[in-house]
Amino acid sequence: MELHIGCIPGDGIGPEIVGEARKVLDRVAEKFGHTIQYTEILLGGASIDVHGVPLTEEAIEAAKSSDAVLMGSIGGDANTSPWYKLPPQKRPEAGLLAIRKALGLFANLRPAVLYDELAGACPLKEEISKAGFDMMIMRELTGGLYFGERKTTVENGVRTAVDTLTYNENEIRRIAIKAFDIAMKRRKKVTSVDKANVLDSSRLWRDVVNEVAKDYPQVELSHMLVDNCAMQLVKDPAQFDVILTENMFGDILSDEASMVTGSIGMLASASLNDTSFGLYEPSHGSAPDIAGKDIANPIATILSASMMLRYSFDLSAEADAVDNAVKQVLKDGYRTSDIMSEGCKKVGCREMGTLLAERI
Amino acid sequence: MELHIGCIPGDGIGPEIVGEARKVLDRVAEKFGHTIQYTEILLGGASIDVHGVPLTEEAIEAAKSSDAVLMGSIGGDANTSPWYKLPPQKRPEAGLLAIRKALGLFANLRPAVLYDELAGACPLKEEISKAGFDMMIMRELTGGLYFGERKTTVENGVRTAVDTLTYNENEIRRIAIKAFDIAMKRRKKVTSVDKANVLDSSRLWRDVVNEVAKDYPQVELSHMLVDNCAMQLVKDPAQFDVILTENMFGDILSDEASMVTGSIGMLASASLNDTSFGLYEPSHGSAPDIAGKDIANPIATILSASMMLRYSFDLSAEADAVDNAVKQVLKDGYRTSDIMSEGCKKVGCREMGTLLAERI
Ligand SMILES: CC(C)[C@H](C(=O)O)[C@@H](O)C(=O)O
Ligand SMILES: CC(C)[C@H](C(=O)O)[C@@H](O)C(=O)O
Repeated sequence: MELHIGCIPGDGIGPEIVGEARKVLDRVAEKFGHTIQYTEILLGGASIDVHGVPLTEEAIEAAKSSDAVLMGSIGGDANTSPWYKLPPQKRPEAGLLAIRKALGLFANLRPAVLYDELAGACPLKEEISKAGFDMMIMRELTGGLYFGERKTTVENGVRTAVDTLTYNENEIRRIAIKAFDIAMKRRKKVTSVDKANVLDSSRLWRDVVNEVAKDYPQVELSHMLVDNCAMQLVKDPAQFDVILTENMFGDILSDEASMVTGSIGMLASASLNDTSFGLYEPSHGSAPDIAGKDIANPIATILSASMMLRYSFDLSAEADAVDNAVKQVLKDGYRTSDIMSEGCKKVGCREMGTLLAERI
Repeated sequence: MELHIGCIPGDGIGPEIVGEARKVLDRVAEKFGHTIQYTEILLGGASIDVHGVPLTEEAIEAAKSSDAVLMGSIGGDANTSPWYKLPPQKRPEAGLLAIRKALGLFANLRPAVLYDELAGACPLKEEISKAGFDMMIMRELTGGLYFGERKTTVENGVRTAVDTLTYNENEIRRIAIKAFDIAMKRRKKVTSVDKANVLDSSRLWRDVVNEVAKDYPQVELSHMLVDNCAMQLVKDPAQFDVILTENMFGDILSDEASMVTGSIGMLASASLNDTSFGLYEPSHGSAPDIAGKDIANPIATILSASMMLRYSFDLSAEADAVDNAVKQVLKDGYRTSDIMSEGCKKVGCREMGTLLAERI
């Protein structure tokens, strides 16, 4: 098979971690008889530096003509980077939001998994963490407060700012269907999270999710208020299989869940539209403080590449090979510094990539 | 001093826990030579049962003519209670939102404290919890998504729901001032939480908070994105002193923080306007499953009464007496079942109230 992969190295540690993911993908291609063609695409700070804007039309076109896009990370240090002197629409993150919208990437999949070997890094006490957990947060990614109308006005000298949270039933239905489809391949449990005791958009959310659920009689659906979910993630993360929620709640809860694993350097993500196209990126940020030092953990990006093989190319044997390599390298005791613990062998970003490629 | 206290027993365990708080307040009055006059007020489910609506004009008037209001908890079991068959505007919580707005209670103070004696209940591992934490979450309570325009429409058969997030600079300034004032009496640190990389309302929030900060040169201010804050509360709660944030973020983060303490039965809250008036209630809910069984923990309500003495009546010696009684009762090994641990003496709701009154 010939894979056309768009590559967005991005900012901070982005270029390093994407480099290691490509190393692993190349090894997969060699082993399974595929060929990969990479197209490099500029986004975020890297695009501002060259073009003065975080996303260009050409970048969107290049992404669209790829089968899938692998991304490092976007943004820099908001306190020191010159990008953050620009108006908000010109800052690195604006490129990220714009490309999500331009490519229609409405379904954001963020697994939060506690690896046995890394359970020691979990901030929860053993009583709770010993149950383990493996959840998939499905965040709606192109609606809600992120893309509603907004404006700041001044009237009689008083500044007022407005953001708008809008969802229509089609936007809710398509992400709900994805969530139930994915639950069918997992433990068949969906927790839909909203604030239906306050928001109209949440009440519509709940109604539409209930409608979709009728087509999945085998899936157990429950509804949870967002404030309660923020508590339950800390109290008993093992209760969750698939969490389905809107854009802003998903942003907050997926980050909370990632921290509950204790190893955000291990967490992948996929952003899908209704074709097989997807954009794959680690859940963590660009970590500008450690950029270029060969100490970043490339595993989240490598697992994102694995999600790409699975979701965009339907190559599950290849994806399994990558996932197993990650498990094996952990068993073999290799750790980057963010997940280092006593008795393990500390390796850098490049060496981790090589060790993983060797295990494919 | 004569204290006119409005009393909203509310739903579920509300009447029991308010009863114990009154027992403690009466003992304070006796000891310190005050007289208390209580006016009972119906809100939430209790009001629906009598008047068909969760909040009446008379209830608002009764609250307004009190010096302060002590509340139990509002709402029932959304799955079984008949209240939840009513349209959203008629459900118990609607009364809670309406009274906040009617009384202008824009500043919600939610302390999240790890008590030494209860550290074992903290879901975080000892490595993290041993640092202890004692934070005050200041949530804006009468603006944002909770009170913006909302509507659900159907066009060409497609349902669309809209909620609006609006803040003007005056709304932001007054809660920011309260937060800085409170920080001055604490560890002089404010973390303002927003989503300024996406929302106009958050960018205005950040600007206004920066302006207010100029009048408090001794207070250390930092800004944190809401997704990051959801992570930091789990990773390192000790870093926070005062967290200042808008309504919806505050709802989510204060509940997360309360769960991080592991003892939500211990957490008080105060909702203030710009007079000395305030509404005081436990952070936890109405726990309908244990209502009427004399097993609820009344301490959160009793500590809310202590906040009332402090913030509405400026009686800090009296408030200290209540806070110390709580500490003493914990030292003496008495626990309600929610905070029970080995070697302690398990007591019911009423006995806990009596034990606390005896320690005033
Ligand atoms: C950078 C930011 C705009 C973005 C978001 O809020 O979606 C990030 O936090 C994420 O979760 O991918
Ligand atoms: C009951 C609900 C409307 C309320 C809120 O969201 O404000 C509650 O969760 C709270 O935090 O007091």
